[in-house]
Amino acid sequence: MHKGRLEAFSDGVLAIIITIMVLELKAPHGPDAADLKPLLPVLLSYVLSFIYIGIYWNNHHHMFQATTRVGGGVLWANLHLLFWLSLFPFVTDWMGENHFAIIPTAFYGGVLLMASLAYWILQTTVVRQQGSHALLAKAIGRDRKGKISPILYAIAIASAFFSVLLSQLLYLLVALIWLVPDRRIERTLAGEKTPGE
Amino acid sequence: MHKGRLEAFSDGVLAIIITIMVLELKAPHGPDAADLKPLLPVLLSYVLSFIYIGIYWNNHHHMFQATTRVGGGVLWANLHLLFWLSLFPFVTDWMGENHFAIIPTAFYGGVLLMASLAYWILQTTVVRQQGSHALLAKAIGRDRKGKISPILYAIAIASAFFSVLLSQLLYLLVALIWLVPDRRIERTLAGEKTPGE
Amino acid sequence: MHKGRLEAFSDGVLAIIITIMVLELKAPHGPDAADLKPLLPVLLSYVLSFIYIGIYWNNHHHMFQATTRVGGGVLWANLHLLFWLSLFPFVTDWMGENHFAIIPTAFYGGVLLMASLAYWILQTTVVRQQGSHALLAKAIGRDRKGKISPILYAIAIASAFFSVLLSQLLYLLVALIWLVPDRRIERTLAGEKTPGE
Amino acid sequence: MHKGRLEAFSDGVLAIIITIMVLELKAPHGPDAADLKPLLPVLLSYVLSFIYIGIYWNNHHHMFQATTRVGGGVLWANLHLLFWLSLFPFVTDWMGENHFAIIPTAFYGGVLLMASLAYWILQTTVVRQQGSHALLAKAIGRDRKGKISPILYAIAIASAFFSVLLSQLLYLLVALIWLVPDRRIERTLAGEKTPGE
Repeated sequence: MHKGRLEAFSDGVLAIIITIMVLELKAPHGPDAADLKPLLPVLLSYVLSFIYIGIYWNNHHHMFQATTRVGGGVLWANLHLLFWLSLFPFVTDWMGENHFAIIPTAFYGGVLLMASLAYWILQTTVVRQQGSHALLAKAIGRDRKGKISPILYAIAIASAFFSVLLSQLLYLLVALIWLVPDRRIERTLAGEKTPGE
Repeated sequence: MHKGRLEAFSDGVLAIIITIMVLELKAPHGPDAADLKPLLPVLLSYVLSFIYIGIYWNNHHHMFQATTRVGGGVLWANLHLLFWLSLFPFVTDWMGENHFAIIPTAFYGGVLLMASLAYWILQTTVVRQQGSHALLAKAIGRDRKGKISPILYAIAIASAFFSVLLSQLLYLLVALIWLVPDRRIERTLAGEKTPGE
Repeated sequence: MHKGRLEAFSDGVLAIIITIMVLELKAPHGPDAADLKPLLPVLLSYVLSFIYIGIYWNNHHHMFQATTRVGGGVLWANLHLLFWLSLFPFVTDWMGENHFAIIPTAFYGGVLLMASLAYWILQTTVVRQQGSHALLAKAIGRDRKGKISPILYAIAIASAFFSVLLSQLLYLLVALIWLVPDRRIERTLAGEKTPGE
Repeated sequence: MHKGRLEAFSDGVLAIIITIMVLELKAPHGPDAADLKPLLPVLLSYVLSFIYIGIYWNNHHHMFQATTRVGGGVLWANLHLLFWLSLFPFVTDWMGENHFAIIPTAFYGGVLLMASLAYWILQTTVVRQQGSHALLAKAIGRDRKGKISPILYAIAIASAFFSVLLSQLLYLLVALIWLVPDRRIERTLAGEKTPGE
């Protein structure tokens, strides 16, 4: 089956998720700089979520770059991932509006955790369909980032009940770990394809 | 005529429908877990509708995979389907906010029913244009799922007036029936095309 | 220049316009069928606008089907058309919420009129770039529909001050005239291309 | 790496940004022409931002037209640009609702400034990857527009504290400078590619 529409649909959903989050940044009624102040935590949540959706788009892009066939299982594993990502606007807004309170911070981590598990399921499904000798399996390798992220999310959720700041720092840390995109895949692909393809 | 733009436009509309439903999940003003409780029915409606839109996207994808030509009739039959699907956010929200009350539950079923009829019209239009010997006609075969779904929706609408729970279970049942994607099409296609195409 | 991205961007904008209009169909707070009643004019406006955006998408699709080159002028003429179409959600909502009052009905016609002029400008720009001997110029021919529509819109705007019903009927009439898609283009193309391309 | 998905994702985000801004144009509750009057500044802001997003889409389109390879750095430089553009609906609404007050006008310029710097970073990243002898580097040349815009934005921000009208005129001036699309790129490309490609 053709991977083009799966990519196009995912791009559409991710583009909408990343953009509608900004709808929660409601313009204040007053015209003063001070009127922006209560929006600061909402803006910070938005920036964090924007980076996360960007990371998911980036890795999704890389994964399907290295994929040649997609079957029914992949379609549903992909929709499952999109479902958890679609909850980002909700938890981002809740966390921002409540100034990083304990429960919303923990829930934010919960959605991050579920999304990372959904990504892992998708990746496993794709790799199984491609075969373990395929380009993607080689490119992913030991997948250390993919394995450490859910653990860090779980720690961040637990630590929200002691220090919300620690949770936020952990969320930021995982984002930084991933900001370096899957260069493994890029490198492996570069070895097999002519650049510019 | 080229099917690419029809697919791209439908992907866009479906991606937006599936994503804007989450806008109804308005972040509660309080920071406690208890503040999420009234949102539970809204979340459940969202999950059900997300699965349904996912199913439609999936089947739409499969149908046009097996399609080679699209004429004016198909364009309008497709827009007609998208119209009914575009009412999903409205009925999902109405049903969720009123905690699965009788009338909203019945209306939700009404939109499901109309969407399934619109899908059937689209499928018939596509098959007629392809000819009954074409790949798609063979792949659809007797279309038992397509025939039983509207009947189950009608039963669910009627039963809402006796037991809302029964209606919801029927909606869920039809979703489960369809969650198995059109493997018939996948299998028929696989027999004629090289995989990975 | 490649027409692909112009089509993709236009598809995106049209898909969003056609879908966000439904956000104005706000779920009523009550669970009764009677609670839907005040929404009826909003729903009717939505249906009319959905058909109009569908017509524009359809004709846009046909026009660029017959186009081979796009330059800077076409990009801006296209954005100009999208601007007027982007005002549809606003006037649709205003007209619906005010139960087809005089001024909103006239403004709705004003946006229809401007959109039809913008479409005409776009079409003229595209034809000029293709040359008058090109496929598209032949396909459009005398463009009777394109010439009569703005006249009918102007009449509808004026008649809103005497009879709003007459305006609405005229809006509906123009939609019906266009619902038959540009078969001219389809036919001309069919004569020159192999079907299924 | 393939540039197709980067273009598709950017098109999606830009299409959504340009369209959701119209959601701030909330239909007035009254049915009279006078009810539109308070919306006029919001409409004017919308028009200005629509033109700006159109310019960014246009130039983005031209830049990647002339690009053959995209690496990880380009993906992130592109997301960085999309982030600043995603703040357009927010500042547009804030400026419009406060009738072009001083602080919102200055902030609007701040987002324009950051977006222009982000575009410059993206362009530099793309050029570096292509090599200075590449088509794009030639096409951009001395990039006078790209260099003067941030300076004009900075002047506009400062002048907001003396005359908001002057700021608005400067925003308009930069838009007019850019409305002439990157004909340099178009011309350079035209010399190397067959038209219609």
